[in-house]
Order: sequence, then C-alpha cells, then structure tokens
Amino acid sequence: MTRFDWDAKYGERVSHMYGSMTRQLMHLTSDPQIISFGGGLPAWDLFPVEKVKEVVDHILDSDGAATLQYGTSEGYEPLRLAVAERYRKRGFDVSKDNVLITCGAQQGIDLVSKLFLDKGSSVLVEDPTFLTALQAFSLFQARCLTVPIDEEGMRVDLLAEILKNDDVKFIYVMPNFQNPSGVTLSLARRKELLKVAQRYGVPILEDDAYGELRYSGEAVPALKELDEAEQVIYLGSFSKVLSPGLRVSALLAPDAVMEKLVFAKQAADLHTDNLAQRIAQGFLVRNLLDPHIQVIIESYRKRRDTMLQAMERYFPAEVTWTKPDGGIFLWVTLPEGMDATDLFQQAVQAKVAYVPGSSYYANGGGENKMRLNFSACDEQRIQIGIERLAKVIIGNLP
Amino acid sequence: MTRFDWDAKYGERVSHMYGSMTRQLMHLTSDPQIISFGGGLPAWDLFPVEKVKEVVDHILDSDGAATLQYGTSEGYEPLRLAVAERYRKRGFDVSKDNVLITCGAQQGIDLVSKLFLDKGSSVLVEDPTFLTALQAFSLFQARCLTVPIDEEGMRVDLLAEILKNDDVKFIYVMPNFQNPSGVTLSLARRKELLKVAQRYGVPILEDDAYGELRYSGEAVPALKELDEAEQVIYLGSFSKVLSPGLRVSALLAPDAVMEKLVFAKQAADLHTDNLAQRIAQGFLVRNLLDPHIQVIIESYRKRRDTMLQAMERYFPAEVTWTKPDGGIFLWVTLPEGMDATDLFQQAVQAKVAYVPGSSYYANGGGENKMRLNFSACDEQRIQIGIERLAKVIIGNLP
Repeated sequence: MTRFDWDAKYGERVSHMYGSMTRQLMHLTSDPQIISFGGGLPAWDLFPVEKVKEVVDHILDSDGAATLQYGTSEGYEPLRLAVAERYRKRGFDVSKDNVLITCGAQQGIDLVSKLFLDKGSSVLVEDPTFLTALQAFSLFQARCLTVPIDEEGMRVDLLAEILKNDDVKFIYVMPNFQNPSGVTLSLARRKELLKVAQRYGVPILEDDAYGELRYSGEAVPALKELDEAEQVIYLGSFSKVLSPGLRVSALLAPDAVMEKLVFAKQAADLHTDNLAQRIAQGFLVRNLLDPHIQVIIESYRKRRDTMLQAMERYFPAEVTWTKPDGGIFLWVTLPEGMDATDLFQQAVQAKVAYVPGSSYYANGGGENKMRLNFSACDEQRIQIGIERLAKVIIGNLP
Repeated sequence: MTRFDWDAKYGERVSHMYGSMTRQLMHLTSDPQIISFGGGLPAWDLFPVEKVKEVVDHILDSDGAATLQYGTSEGYEPLRLAVAERYRKRGFDVSKDNVLITCGAQQGIDLVSKLFLDKGSSVLVEDPTFLTALQAFSLFQARCLTVPIDEEGMRVDLLAEILKNDDVKFIYVMPNFQNPSGVTLSLARRKELLKVAQRYGVPILEDDAYGELRYSGEAVPALKELDEAEQVIYLGSFSKVLSPGLRVSALLAPDAVMEKLVFAKQAADLHTDNLAQRIAQGFLVRNLLDPHIQVIIESYRKRRDTMLQAMERYFPAEVTWTKPDGGIFLWVTLPEGMDATDLFQQAVQAKVAYVPGSSYYANGGGENKMRLNFSACDEQRIQIGIERLAKVIIGNLP
C-alpha cells in the first residue's frame, strides 16, 4: 500500500512551524552529569508536595463529583473570585468577570492570538522575547515587529514611529524580569508605553509570569494596574509560584473582550482541569500561596547571587551580563563575534548547558547572547556550572 | 477617558465566532427543578472519587515533585505507553510514539484544525454533527461540507461526489454512537469510507468519545483499526469513561503527523496537566478503568432503556427517535413543521430541557429535531422528564 500523502493537506501555517529550542535542549541535557542552565524550570526541591496533598484530599472529600464533572469555560468560579480578590488588593480594577482561567499563560497567548491575528497581521514584541510566544504568533502567520530592550526594558521611545506606520494588532510585553533578559521595564517607560499604545489604539498583552518573584529593588506597578483606558490583557500564572505541571493561569481582560475570549477557550479545550483549578484556589483561600512564595524568593535570591558572584569570579572581562531584580533568568553577552550556538556543543561536552540567545530574536540577531537560568540548580551546582562555562568561553577568546 | 476600541483590532475569525448552545443551556437550566436532558454530562453519582483519591495519594507520595514540575508536550510517557498498549490490544497498530495527550478531545480537534485548515478550507462533516467541533472549525474560517446520516451513520455513498469536486482537508466523523444522533457507522460503510477517502487522498479525523460505552449489539472495529494506509487520526478520551473534569484525552496519529501535532500542542499550552495525566495512567495500570467502565455501562444501559420505554409510552405516534446501542444521546424527530427551538421555552416552563437539533447542522436544517441525553439523570427523573416533554409535544400537535 502506498504511503498516505499527508503533506498535500497541511495548511499554510505549517510552513511557519518550529519547535522550541529550549524544549529540544531539555531532551539533549537529560544526562544528570550536565549542569543545565538551559530550561526555565522552578526548583525541584521546593515544590509544596505535602500541602498539595492536603488540599487535594480536602477537595476530593468535600467536592469530588463536581471536580470530576464538566466545568465552565470561564473557569472554577471560586478560583476566579480568589484571583480577582488577590489582584484587587494589588490595585487592579478587576472582578471575577474579568478572569479567565487558562492552561498556563501559554494558552492565554494562544487565545489572544486567535482573537486578534489574521495571516500577515503585525504584532509588536520586545527583541529578544519569550520564544514560545513567538511560536504561537508564527502559527497564526503573524509578522513580528521588534523593539530593542536595554537595562530599563523595552525602548518605548522607539514605539510611536512603528505604531504610526503599521496596524499593530497588539503589543506583547513582559515588564517584570523579562524572559530571556531578566530586565524590568521602568515606571516611567510603563506610563509612556500605555500612553503611546492608547494614542494609536493598540492593545497590550502583558505577560507577568515572574512578577511575584522579586529579590531586590522596589516593586513597579503592573501595566494592568495603570490601565485606565482598559487596553491591557494581563497574564498571571501559578506556574512559577506554585507549579508549572498543573497548568493553571489566570488571564485578566477588560469586559469588552471577555466573551470572545471565553468562546475561544471553549473551542480550544472546553475548560481547564477542575482538580488543578481547585488546588490553586485551595492555595489562595487557605493562605498557603504567599508563605510559599516567600520560601521560593529566599531560595532563588541566593541562587541568583551565587550565579552573579560566580560570573564575577570566573568569567573573563570581555563578557557582560544583566543583574535581574527577580525572575529566574539572566542574560549574557559574549564578545562580539563569538557565537553562542557554535559554543553549545563544547559546553555540553564540558557538562554545562544554556540556551543560545538567537532563539529569542523574532527576526534574527543575538548570536553572541546566551540565557542562563538560576532557579533549577542548587548553589553548589551553579558555581561548578559557571566555572565550566567560563572555561569554554575563555577557550574561545581570540 | 474614552473607551478603548477593541473592535477595531479583532481578526477576521471573530466574525465567525459563536458560543455553544449546549453550554448556554447549562446556565439556563441550573434550576434543580428542571430535568435536563440537555447537557452531555456523565452521571454525577458514578464518578470513582474514592479511587481517584487513592491514586492521587500514591502519585504525590511517590512522584510529587515531577508531577508539579514541567512535563513534555507529547504527554506523560507512562500514560502514552499505557494508552498505546490498550489500543494495541484492540488491534490498533500504534506505539507510544503515536500518542499525543491533549486537554480533552476538543483540544485534539483544535490542534488538527490548526494543522490543516486555512481560511476557506473545506472540512467534511456528518449532518448533524458535534456542535463544538463546528465551533472549532469555524474559528479557523473553514467551510463545512455536509453528508447526511441515516440509521447506519454517514451516507458514505454520497462521499465520492463531494471529494471529487472539492479539496477537502479532512473528514470529521464519529463512527460510534454519534453525537448528537446516537447512530453507529456500519462496518461496510467504515470500509467504504476508508476506501473512498484513500482514493481521494483525504485524511480522516475519527472522534471516538463514546466507543467504549456499548450497551447492546456487537462492537465494530474503529476506522483506525482498519487504517492500513495510515490516513486516520483517532481521538480517544477519558472524559466519558473516567472524568471530563480532568481534561485528559489521547490523540493517536500516524508517525508522519506526530511531530507537527506536538509543535502545535507546545504552542497551544506547552503540555497537559501532569496530575490529571498521572491519574489516567494510574487507572490504566492498576486495572481500575475497565471495571469502572462496566459499572457505567450497566447504569447507562438502564437509563437508555428507561428513556426508550418512557418515549414508547408517552410520545405521540407522530414522533420518531433513534435507538442507540451505546453512548449517551438519542435523537428525536418531531412532526414536520414543529420547531424544537420554538418548543424550548414551553419545555423549560414545564421543567424539562433538551438541545434543539438545529444547533448540530453546519449549514442549517434540523428544526424539528432534538437531542436527548440519558446519562445524567436517574431513571425516575428520566420517566418524569419524558412525560413532561411528551405533554409539551402533544400540546403543540396540529
């Protein structure tokens, strides 16, 4: 029998498809000898397994059948209430009716893309930006326009020129401890971003996956908190503060967009797992989440500091890096002309891994950058790993 | 401040957006006095809550951190192995590499749509068919071509004429106990469907959400089981046999398509909830699922028989209905000229609900049809509900 010809039937978008290098690297680096700064994993040793177990037992004892039955597309109402309450305390003007529960922030990105992006539509992103967001946009055949970042985040001063000349569907931005760079958008720039976006009528998709993980410096209000025009859709997530494996996030959107987002969610997967939603709700209403976040913060601060100190000690003077106030990544700039992708095989041979920076650029660039994660390894492994990486870099200096 | 103009930014697909009437009805019929045959819910009283609890406790005790950590986009490998093993025993030629774990079969439909459907692409569906599949297709701006059904399922004899004249991207079909009609595609027609689809090089998306819930008659091999050309993507689901609330399903696809499906899954939500996946895997490897399916079958068979008997007793001679061998729905044909949507308000006043049939037709029709669910109500409520519904129908006879 002849082989069935699937290729003849794919849609156009398939030609825009590519996998995440980060996730491919996770396969490559499964060797436990390799110290991996490549993934974006929370610390293995900090997951609140016992507390999850208590919460789950309570859920199944008190509400088992409803947990296993179909739920609503908007999400579990007590979770939506608890999420709205949590953000209202921070100054967001939201009620439960502005909360859509999604399977991770990634699904929020996918659903927003579905609503706004036609083939050839423009979306504006930071350069570099979150790789898997780029993948989602590319599957909707969008064109990514880029704005460079510096130590204060997105170069907002360059925005107006772009928005003036192009029908940008939305601006995707990570204001806190950006992935991959770790930089934070300053308050002045946040205000300017909102103003410019409003002037040109462009919505903002604010991805705040890491905002609650701050180790130094002062918290800066979220764009959503400053969003008087109701032009911001905000992605919060339980992935980095509770568990990424449960796939529970909260998307906060203005009333005007909620109904369409719910329709899109319904067509995508009907609703998010009820048990995972109830676990997140249990952590909020039993006041288990904030103490757990404190534990994470204490640990990640030490890991960040350890990595920064090791880099000071071992890296050659030609290399620079960001010094993030939070999140789980920092961003290394190698000497001009040194290629982090070329270095990668040597690094793996030296039993250390990272993500080459060029993956995070929508339209090319970043060959001499690399992203390092400091949350997934303990301090000893961080020191050893940075020492190994430094040797590889030094060995490639001219 | 002026209201932000979101409408100016939506993509074209938003104009094709509509909610599920079924899910809207779930809101309407939250009155416990109303006997609802409207939803597609499993029986509330049969969920294996205690067994889920045992399985979850074991998961968190033995594998807690990995459960809460990120997983792979393909799905939890032991679940993929167990699913492949289960289907191999039934005669499917699949390995774990052909299994993608999704958030319900709905996500399988969404991901397949994403791979194959461009704006204006054709997809062929049964008329009537699963409403939420139509919603997913419409969000990809596809055109639905329809083939009528009769007591033996899709009128496969009408297929060649359509496939000859149109570049159909795939055929979406529910061969077992079809939603909404309850009919089953005969073996002869399954073979003919595969043959015609292969002749014209058209893939098949086989949705088998109800296949394991058979109460009478002989099992018919799945299309996937007969799929020598590797042209079938199969959607299995734990929703109807374990729990819809956990959102775990298995998509079985030929090697040729798997990589692209995994990329699409990754961009959609990275992966499915690890805890829910491990619960499904626990039910399979501890041999808890098959005994539970037997419990469901015994109960649903009685509910189906009760509904059929009550209809014989109370419904007027002008009304006809299908007599499904399995699944959770049957399909009522009212006298020509009687409109099930018009009747709906009277039915709700009489404290009984159903879904008007026209929702299930991609391109109109079915005004005198209604879908009745028999899994969610106990036998007493089924009898009372059918009696109420009969009175409404009789009151509207000419």
